[in-house]
Amino acid sequence: MIGELETDSSTGRIDDGVHALSLSARWGLDDGRLNGGYQLAVALRALAAEVPMPDPVVASATFLRPATPGPARVLTEVVRAGRRLATGTARLVQAGSDGVERDVLRLEATFADLAASPADSHDLTGPPDLPPFDRCRVFGGDDAPATAAPVSRRVRFAAPELPGWARGKPSGDPRAEFWFAFADGSDATLLDLAFVVDGAAPVVLDLGRGSSTVQLTVHLRERPAPGPLRCRTVTQHLAHGLHEEDVEVWDAAGALVAQSRQLALLL
Amino acid sequence: MIGELETDSSTGRIDDGVHALSLSARWGLDDGRLNGGYQLAVALRALAAEVPMPDPVVASATFLRPATPGPARVLTEVVRAGRRLATGTARLVQAGSDGVERDVLRLEATFADLAASPADSHDLTGPPDLPPFDRCRVFGGDDAPATAAPVSRRVRFAAPELPGWARGKPSGDPRAEFWFAFADGSDATLLDLAFVVDGAAPVVLDLGRGSSTVQLTVHLRERPAPGPLRCRTVTQHLAHGLHEEDVEVWDAAGALVAQSRQLALLL
Repeated sequence: MIGELETDSSTGRIDDGVHALSLSARWGLDDGRLNGGYQLAVALRALAAEVPMPDPVVASATFLRPATPGPARVLTEVVRAGRRLATGTARLVQAGSDGVERDVLRLEATFADLAASPADSHDLTGPPDLPPFDRCRVFGGDDAPATAAPVSRRVRFAAPELPGWARGKPSGDPRAEFWFAFADGSDATLLDLAFVVDGAAPVVLDLGRGSSTVQLTVHLRERPAPGPLRCRTVTQHLAHGLHEEDVEVWDAAGALVAQSRQLALLL
Repeated sequence: MIGELETDSSTGRIDDGVHALSLSARWGLDDGRLNGGYQLAVALRALAAEVPMPDPVVASATFLRPATPGPARVLTEVVRAGRRLATGTARLVQAGSDGVERDVLRLEATFADLAASPADSHDLTGPPDLPPFDRCRVFGGDDAPATAAPVSRRVRFAAPELPGWARGKPSGDPRAEFWFAFADGSDATLLDLAFVVDGAAPVVLDLGRGSSTVQLTVHLRERPAPGPLRCRTVTQHLAHGLHEEDVEVWDAAGALVAQSRQLALLL
C-alpha cells in the first residue's frame, strides 16, 4: 500500500536533476504553512531518485522560509558517488507572491545500501516502554478535533495519556514517549521516517512555548518493520531563545530506525 | 591570545566569497590526512567572514574526501540573511594528485547574534562530574608520544584515567568524560568548538573499532567562558557498519556551549 505521505511527496522529473510537484495542503499546520517533516520528505524523495544508492542514512536540512501548499520544484545535485556512500544536495524552491522562486529548504543527504551489510546492531538505549497501541489513549487521525491542523489528521499518536499541553496544563517537563502510525494505515518506509521525526508537536509546548525548526539532521538507521513506531522525544537544552529537540524512533521489531536532532527557535 | 587553531584555520579572501589558505600539517592524523574538526573550523571561519551575523549556532558538514596539508580554497555563499538568523554554505575544495579541485567538505551553517538575547538557559543535563583538571591524568599536548598524530600535540585531555583503548585494553563501553584544553593555553572561542567536538579520538575505539566521520552537525550554544572545557561523549547505536557519536561540551562556568552528533563509518 502506497501511503498518503509517499503519494503527496512524490515528484515528477522535469529536467536533469529537476523535479516538480504541487505541495499538498493535507500536511498543513494551523497557520497554513506546511509541516517541516513533509517538506523534508519531499526534498529527500526527489534526491533519492537521483542518487545511485538506495537508502538515505543521514539527511540534514535548513528551513529557510515557510512553504505553502501549491507548486514547488526540487533542484537536486549528486555531489559524490562512492563505493559505500553517495551524497547529494536538494533545494526545495517555491515562488513567493512576487512570482520569484526562493529557497524554502536546503538539504544535504548521504545514501548507502543497508541490505549490503548485516545489521549487527548494538544499542545502549532501548525502545520506550509503552502499553500496546490499542490500550493507549489515541489522538490525531479521525479523532483530531475539527479545528485541528490538517497534518494532525494524517497521523495517529497513542500514549497512556494526552500530553499536558493538549489538556491545557503544560507539564513543565519537555519529554514525551508515544506510539506513531500513519492514519491511513500504511507502514512507514525508511524515507518516511524523515517526516516522522518532525511529525509530532514539539515537546517545548509542555514548557508553554511554541517552536519553529531552524535545522534538522536525521539519521535513518534501519528499514522499519511493519506496524506502529515508538518515539522518544526530549528537549534538554534551551538558551538564547533556541532549543534542541532529540527524537528516537523504534520499530515494532525493537530496532532503532531513526534518530534526529533539530535546533529550533522558541516562539 | 590568538590560538594555534585560529591561526591555522584563518583564510585570505581572494575573490567575492572565495577564500584560500594552506591547510596545516599540525592538525594531521596518524595517516597524514587532516582531522575533520580542523577542516570544519576552516570552512566555518571562512563562511563566518561572509555572513552578516556574528555567531554560528548550527553547522552541518558532510565529509566527502580526505583533506591533506597544503593549498585549499573555501567557496562560500550567503543563502539568506534575515532579522534573527542568517544562513550560508561553504565548500572546502582541494586539488588531487591530478590537479583537479574536488569537494573535501560541504558545510551549511546558520548564524545569530547570541548577545542580542539573554541566555535564560534551561538544561536537563549538567556538566560531567570530574576532578579538577590538574588532579587528573593528562594526555596529549607535550605528553603525547613522539609517534602520536600531530593533532594530539595541539590539545590536552585530562581524566581520572586514560581510556581503555589507550592502555591497550578497550573497555567495551563507548562513553567518555574528560577535560579538553588547547595545548598552547589559548581559550576556545565559540567557533573553535566546531573543532573541539571532533577533536578527541572516537569512543568506538573502546569497542576495538576505528571510525571515519561521514556527517557531523554541531549546535554552538554559548560563547565559552575562559578555561578548560568538560566533554561528554557517547556512541549509543551501531548498525550496518555505521554509528552515531554524541558530544556535549561544557565551559568552566557550567554552561553547555556545544552539542554535536555525527554519523560515522566503522572501520
